[in-house]
Amino acid sequence: MFNIRLVIRILGFLLLLEGFFIFLCIPVSLIYREGVHIELGTCGLINTLAGGIMMLMTWKADRNLQSRDGFIVVSTGWLLISLFGALPFVLTGSIPSYTNAFFETVSGFTTTGATILDNIEALPKSVLFWRSLIQWLGGMGIIVMSLAIFPLLGIGGIQLFDAESPGPTVDKLHPRIKETARRLWLIYIIYTVAEIILLVAGRMDLFDSVNHTFATMATGGFSTRQLSVGYWDSPYIHYVITLFMFLAGVNFTLSYFAFHLDFKKVFQNNEFRLYFGIIAVCSIISMLVLHRTQDFSWEESFRHGTFQVVSIMTTTGFVTTDYGLWVPLLQFILVLLMFIGGSAGSTSGAIKVVRIFLFVKNGFLELRRMIHPSALIPVRMNKNVIAPEIISNVVGFIAFYLLAALIGVIAITAMGYDINSSLGAVATTLGNVGPGTGAFGPAASFNHAPALGKWIFSFLMLIGRLELFTVLILLSPGFWRK
Amino acid sequence: MFNIRLVIRILGFLLLLEGFFIFLCIPVSLIYREGVHIELGTCGLINTLAGGIMMLMTWKADRNLQSRDGFIVVSTGWLLISLFGALPFVLTGSIPSYTNAFFETVSGFTTTGATILDNIEALPKSVLFWRSLIQWLGGMGIIVMSLAIFPLLGIGGIQLFDAESPGPTVDKLHPRIKETARRLWLIYIIYTVAEIILLVAGRMDLFDSVNHTFATMATGGFSTRQLSVGYWDSPYIHYVITLFMFLAGVNFTLSYFAFHLDFKKVFQNNEFRLYFGIIAVCSIISMLVLHRTQDFSWEESFRHGTFQVVSIMTTTGFVTTDYGLWVPLLQFILVLLMFIGGSAGSTSGAIKVVRIFLFVKNGFLELRRMIHPSALIPVRMNKNVIAPEIISNVVGFIAFYLLAALIGVIAITAMGYDINSSLGAVATTLGNVGPGTGAFGPAASFNHAPALGKWIFSFLMLIGRLELFTVLILLSPGFWRK
Repeated sequence: MFNIRLVIRILGFLLLLEGFFIFLCIPVSLIYREGVHIELGTCGLINTLAGGIMMLMTWKADRNLQSRDGFIVVSTGWLLISLFGALPFVLTGSIPSYTNAFFETVSGFTTTGATILDNIEALPKSVLFWRSLIQWLGGMGIIVMSLAIFPLLGIGGIQLFDAESPGPTVDKLHPRIKETARRLWLIYIIYTVAEIILLVAGRMDLFDSVNHTFATMATGGFSTRQLSVGYWDSPYIHYVITLFMFLAGVNFTLSYFAFHLDFKKVFQNNEFRLYFGIIAVCSIISMLVLHRTQDFSWEESFRHGTFQVVSIMTTTGFVTTDYGLWVPLLQFILVLLMFIGGSAGSTSGAIKVVRIFLFVKNGFLELRRMIHPSALIPVRMNKNVIAPEIISNVVGFIAFYLLAALIGVIAITAMGYDINSSLGAVATTLGNVGPGTGAFGPAASFNHAPALGKWIFSFLMLIGRLELFTVLILLSPGFWRK
Repeated sequence: MFNIRLVIRILGFLLLLEGFFIFLCIPVSLIYREGVHIELGTCGLINTLAGGIMMLMTWKADRNLQSRDGFIVVSTGWLLISLFGALPFVLTGSIPSYTNAFFETVSGFTTTGATILDNIEALPKSVLFWRSLIQWLGGMGIIVMSLAIFPLLGIGGIQLFDAESPGPTVDKLHPRIKETARRLWLIYIIYTVAEIILLVAGRMDLFDSVNHTFATMATGGFSTRQLSVGYWDSPYIHYVITLFMFLAGVNFTLSYFAFHLDFKKVFQNNEFRLYFGIIAVCSIISMLVLHRTQDFSWEESFRHGTFQVVSIMTTTGFVTTDYGLWVPLLQFILVLLMFIGGSAGSTSGAIKVVRIFLFVKNGFLELRRMIHPSALIPVRMNKNVIAPEIISNVVGFIAFYLLAALIGVIAITAMGYDINSSLGAVATTLGNVGPGTGAFGPAASFNHAPALGKWIFSFLMLIGRLELFTVLILLSPGFWRK
């Protein structure tokens, strides 16, 4: 009943592709004379060979992919490329422990940005390039997944909520997956090129500009510097990165409309308005509180406050200053934003603004339903009625998200960490943000967690990125029956 | 359009009743020669006079109560009796600050049990008796409210979920409010008498037995001792109180069935099974962890672990030992239980097990709905199909509950408290539990909070007790229109 051959074939293709991108790191090693090109070449070969064999063995696979197969492909796909993508870290000796390397790779592909590195600058630039590249590729994967694949599988992709495409079908942006992906990737690439140019113009060197751009557009947050973006004491660079983090947290379909000068569609979009509103309110609160409690000028308070709010809400995770030193009020707001996340159809993670919108709006409509018990009051978004099945799906997602977070916190506190650190660490991994709070704050890393903790965090990053349902469905007996 | 006269008349009746109960404290003052009978008498008079005048002025009120009036009565009723119920504390000089006295009274009537007292034994016994009595009365009020009034108002009372009464109508237990209340109060009183007898049998003196029983049955948690139940170093007393807290956290309708030996109905009830299951699992975890991390024997680990789990989950808030010293894992579990709460139709607060059951079960059904996209898969409870409108109501409640908690934590952290303390304090007040964590842990009180904080906590206790919707509906413009 499952098309296992085709599943293996697609997974093989992913490994082949990964091998190709590992080869891209070899020139970097040669340019900077780091002497790790042999190791990188070996990793590339392992990937291409494994992928090639898988593809050759399944040459005659039936090309018909069922939605059940889709769930398997997506879940095992991200796991497999992470398992193999960890090799460059291990074989070059940059991250000798496989557990650590796997954590770092999952953090990369899921565009989380949590790290086990305590001295980033000590790594070869070619390996850092691989570390940034997997984020950028992960971001590309997410866009296709959320805007093209998830809707086909009936998982809450943006299309489920989109005015113009009622029901779980491919979106109307363009009726074919490939074409949709191509158009959105084009925007992704345009943004990428624009940010690199603007960063270089701000006198960040080309290598750092490329790496930080990769991590920005993926809302990943890996930096080539131990101090993250705080390494550069340049307001210009901070503002440029804030802008692109903001853009990366917007539904790419809206960017597509903006590129076609259809701004009305952007500004009338409920999710975009709430996304912008939350950022504005939290940035203003941060500015006011920072000016009062930290030794910051008004400009610094505005800049660091907004940067951090945008960075956390878009689930990027860059930092310009150690927010672990901020007052509890601001840290709590940041943890809240870790749960909310950016827009659906962007590269950001967590629950996502659209689900929060529907969840809360449904609550307010309950009040109206109580006042008018006999009236039928549906939830509307972007002026369209949202089907009860979609609300139910959103609610189910939020229930699982909270459940996963709670089980995660229980597991991490069981390892002896305090509640604040555990909550932050789980919020930041499940939401694919990056740094957490307390012991896992921006000044620290995840290195001090026990090995079991690192595997739990890796699992949280993966299920968070795969929108929970994709993984949970594989764990439910009904999926394998019949 | 509103029947204001009748609203005033009912509120007057409540004050009159309150005055009568204040008079009941006078004999206690006389017996223990505390010399506060004049002050108590004055308070009683103020209440009866105010109530009497309100009733006389509205003698000719139309006896027809609309559901809109019901919302106003319930909300302002709890507020009014708290405002007047604070007088005995102030006039006897026991709690000179009105803010503190109001906090304590709200904490009493809402059966929360959070206190601003740092030296409980210093108060006159008659005032402590008032303090316990308002909890017991609050508990009675809650039973009527949740089993008789809320269903009429369309708010998620147990009847909404009850197999035998589809839709928001008066339950089938007995078709009239008065009769329902009388039967459930009878159980309440039987339990009360039984606990007093058992406590006295364990050599707790009569005064303490009565007070602790009042606080147990209301799942309130006010103690006459600074050390709470921990004052008695008696396993027997701990186990007796654990048992009655457990019973007070069960839907009183189930107790009614049990009294009629219909145990099948009890054990097949989904909410009861989940309630029991959560308590069992958390108690076992607590026992194992306490034995490892504290200097407790196995019996002590079992007793203190189970006592604390039952006390917090039923939202009572008694303590036998300072759980603020326990490892983060156990403290986090306790905070979680503060959010869950006991059963609907009991005197406990918070979200309640039945809502958690429906919220999580709906999530799991989403998985099945994805596997069988064309099948109609409804949520079932106690073998009956639950209407989508009820799920929607539950979800709306949970959304508001989380929203209220988040806004609360933001407000409390803004006053400078750390995240852990703020989270615990908000969870414990909104959930009507009692003690919180950190700065608001069982070893401390709420006295050190700034006045604004005390008013916020009082507000949280009230809206938590009134199941949010009752208060929120008064704040929505649509309620006042037409």
